[in-house]
Amino acid sequence: MAGGNTTGGKTIGILGGMGPEATADLFLKIIKATPAEKDQEHLRVVIDSNPAIPDRTAFILGKGEDPTPVMVKTAKNVESLGADLIAIPCNTAHYFHDAIQGAVKVPVLHIMREVARLLKGHVERVGILASTGTLKTELYERALGESGISVIVPRGDDQDEVMDAIYSVKGGNLERGREIALRQGARLVEAGAQAVIAGCTEIPLVLSDGDLETPVVDATKVLAEACVRLAVGECV
Amino acid sequence: MAGGNTTGGKTIGILGGMGPEATADLFLKIIKATPAEKDQEHLRVVIDSNPAIPDRTAFILGKGEDPTPVMVKTAKNVESLGADLIAIPCNTAHYFHDAIQGAVKVPVLHIMREVARLLKGHVERVGILASTGTLKTELYERALGESGISVIVPRGDDQDEVMDAIYSVKGGNLERGREIALRQGARLVEAGAQAVIAGCTEIPLVLSDGDLETPVVDATKVLAEACVRLAVGECV
Repeated sequence: MAGGNTTGGKTIGILGGMGPEATADLFLKIIKATPAEKDQEHLRVVIDSNPAIPDRTAFILGKGEDPTPVMVKTAKNVESLGADLIAIPCNTAHYFHDAIQGAVKVPVLHIMREVARLLKGHVERVGILASTGTLKTELYERALGESGISVIVPRGDDQDEVMDAIYSVKGGNLERGREIALRQGARLVEAGAQAVIAGCTEIPLVLSDGDLETPVVDATKVLAEACVRLAVGECV
Repeated sequence: MAGGNTTGGKTIGILGGMGPEATADLFLKIIKATPAEKDQEHLRVVIDSNPAIPDRTAFILGKGEDPTPVMVKTAKNVESLGADLIAIPCNTAHYFHDAIQGAVKVPVLHIMREVARLLKGHVERVGILASTGTLKTELYERALGESGISVIVPRGDDQDEVMDAIYSVKGGNLERGREIALRQGARLVEAGAQAVIAGCTEIPLVLSDGDLETPVVDATKVLAEACVRLAVGECV
């Protein structure tokens, strides 16, 4: 291992850059989720924030370069520095989870499965604010369906607007992103969602629990807590 | 090189973990300082946030383990992933700058010299809120002195309080950290400082420009802007 931690915790690797703000957001949420009162009690985190990774949604929609090779290389980079587990702060990127997991020896966490584990038994129907790429892959539908939870997603123009929100946040226009996320989140609640999943890493940057009439589930925070749980030695 | 960037920018390496929040803060400030409207226009950033690095101030005060070997190893880690330059989000750690620079082939930025470069010609006397370790090394005094700027620092109990603020922030007690930083910052202004340098990476987490009657210079932000300037190809 390339490094270590005085507390005996494992090293968390982040396959990042999709986008950079979401990567920093996961890093901060890992820090907050770690029980520590001084530097030396925190966990080691190694990050490769590589924004050159091609757009995931574009590829899934058949309009862009395959991001798999660069993602695999980035995962291997953090593994080479001693990562004992890897997290990917990009929901859409989980379409490529099998390819990434197949290329490294350490466990790669799966954000949808972690969210489903958290919600299982608590709700029957959830709304999802995610990229068009994530929705097309039906990754949330599958993971939640296995936990007995059905999903409601925006359709047509509504989903185009969610995608606009995501790219607005990536471009630094948080006000526009928030305005759309609030409106589309409220529509999912009207349609019967008992909770709304902020299922794209840009969404929790502008939509928080308390903003809607139902709970907002921050998938990035769920992933961060899973990282810490695994890194301090509990079961995944 | 282990990765790349579509915009042709260089890869920034962060020797982090001192503390983890300060590392995330530098990362966020690099993102904000980068002119980009989509993921792929951002710079690649590789981070080794290794909180196991022994306390810098403790060592400088003769009461702790030498952090040099772990810092050198951490710098080599980010260099091995293709970092073209390295930044250290810990002011006190710059006491070990020569040892780190001597161990890697790429340039290691120097936070005090970047702050001095920014302030040269604009002020004659600045106050510094920094760790006792940083003050003892006189790193700011030297860099600023070469730019014709004299310094005012808290003494005795006042400096002990600043150190309390820094460890409070590291321990998650931001309210206490902010309360002390505001009081001690105001005292430096009363003593004649024309600007106050937030010269420990924990200080800008609780003290911002606008909080005092003089400008507050966020050394972390200055370092972030230097990283981006160098990474996009301009002179250091």
